Amino acid sequence: MISGNQIKFIRSLTRKKVRDEMGLFIAEGSTLVEDLLQSTFIFDHLYAVKDWLDVYAPVLQEKRIRHTEISQSQLERISQQVTPNKALAVLRKPDWKFNPDALSDKLSIALDTISDPGNMGTIIRVADWFGIQTILCTYDTTDCFSSKVVQASMGSIARVNIHCLDLKSVLSSLKIQLPVYGAVLNGKNVFSEKLTSHGIILIGNESQGISPGIRDCITHPLTIPSFAPETSHAESLNASVATAILAAEFRRQHTR
Amino acid sequence: MISGNQIKFIRSLTRKKVRDEMGLFIAEGSTLVEDLLQSTFIFDHLYAVKDWLDVYAPVLQEKRIRHTEISQSQLERISQQVTPNKALAVLRKPDWKFNPDALSDKLSIALDTISDPGNMGTIIRVADWFGIQTILCTYDTTDCFSSKVVQASMGSIARVNIHCLDLKSVLSSLKIQLPVYGAVLNGKNVFSEKLTSHGIILIGNESQGISPGIRDCITHPLTIPSFAPETSHAESLNASVATAILAAEFRRQHTR
Repeated sequence: MISGNQIKFIRSLTRKKVRDEMGLFIAEGSTLVEDLLQSTFIFDHLYAVKDWLDVYAPVLQEKRIRHTEISQSQLERISQQVTPNKALAVLRKPDWKFNPDALSDKLSIALDTISDPGNMGTIIRVADWFGIQTILCTYDTTDCFSSKVVQASMGSIARVNIHCLDLKSVLSSLKIQLPVYGAVLNGKNVFSEKLTSHGIILIGNESQGISPGIRDCITHPLTIPSFAPETSHAESLNASVATAILAAEFRRQHTR
Repeated sequence: MISGNQIKFIRSLTRKKVRDEMGLFIAEGSTLVEDLLQSTFIFDHLYAVKDWLDVYAPVLQEKRIRHTEISQSQLERISQQVTPNKALAVLRKPDWKFNPDALSDKLSIALDTISDPGNMGTIIRVADWFGIQTILCTYDTTDCFSSKVVQASMGSIARVNIHCLDLKSVLSSLKIQLPVYGAVLNGKNVFSEKLTSHGIILIGNESQGISPGIRDCITHPLTIPSFAPETSHAESLNASVATAILAAEFRRQHTR
């Protein structure tokens, strides 16, 4: 049984301010919740319909996760999905600690104000796929704990550390020890450059690109060449697509 | 001045059935409309606010495009965007003719039921960027003339031909002369395969992958390797991201 106040509280978590104050966020759907049950994320409370709880009750018991059985219509009231799917979890935001020294031999991603939640979620999923453990982002980047980002990340949010910070000053100090590869329109062809196995892939905002102050931190400007130069063609690639192509190329050059 | 009936008509174009019957679709926003003015697409009618028309009136005159000045509040009534931006065009759906013989020396994309409009728009933009002129798709693929696809394609929809057809039978006959590279989970590593410069990149549905019938048409199963095999990681890549990485690798191998 879920109370009116609980419903109101869960719905209030759609607001970033409330998520930040409470240190909580929401993940929905049978597959995603199941995926997060395997993660280190801490469940504050789980709401699910009977047939889902019938299956997962032993796991919830073992992990001592507080849970409440709700009806389909109650799920619809607390869900932000078009088709609510059996379970909704309220989770504690992880306490990701930023340690710049840990980046020195790794490939990481930095985002200068990605604003589309779908892109953000996809970038988290790309990072996870390519074994990239850290994403740095500006304070103005879309909140990675919003419903759309969490859902688009498909559980990858539990396997990638995301740090919102003063990106300009962090990159300024990182670039002394690490190459900062910026995705720009007039950089060097990523496919003919010899890339290092470690460094930062820096991606700019969907419409503005990398802002001037942060652009100064780039040590290696890179471009994904268009292969239709003779005709008119797209002006740019989607931010998550650019991230994916660059990450893939870094990994391709350093694996056999 | 725009009439109540015109507003009703424009709003009816949000429905695929109406778009198909009328052979029309909508594109919105100053940048996109300007981009499409350079394309071969035929404008049925253009609605825009005064300051936009002041700038573009000569172009509209030259191209003999019917247009109507509307107020900001009228634009808000006909727009499907959260922040309507100056202009809305009603365009004629292009008459793309499918010629299988034209694919023989080219790289093309085939989509087995992509259902997310954002993915579809991004894939069109990726195709345009990499000089891929043809996308084949199943009848069940999300309509490429829906507002979300058109907006996400960022004008690339005017430079890529999209054919909805019986994909299984078309690929069955194409595979006799062309390699069909299917993106699957247990294929060969795309980065260690020698890829041909021409062929079909086949991408499956976001959750179901490539359907069994169409899977039989694959001549070369390909996989984008994950570089985090030792830890748990994402189960798959987003469909548009997978398309982009594969298209980039085909082009990389065949350009110097």
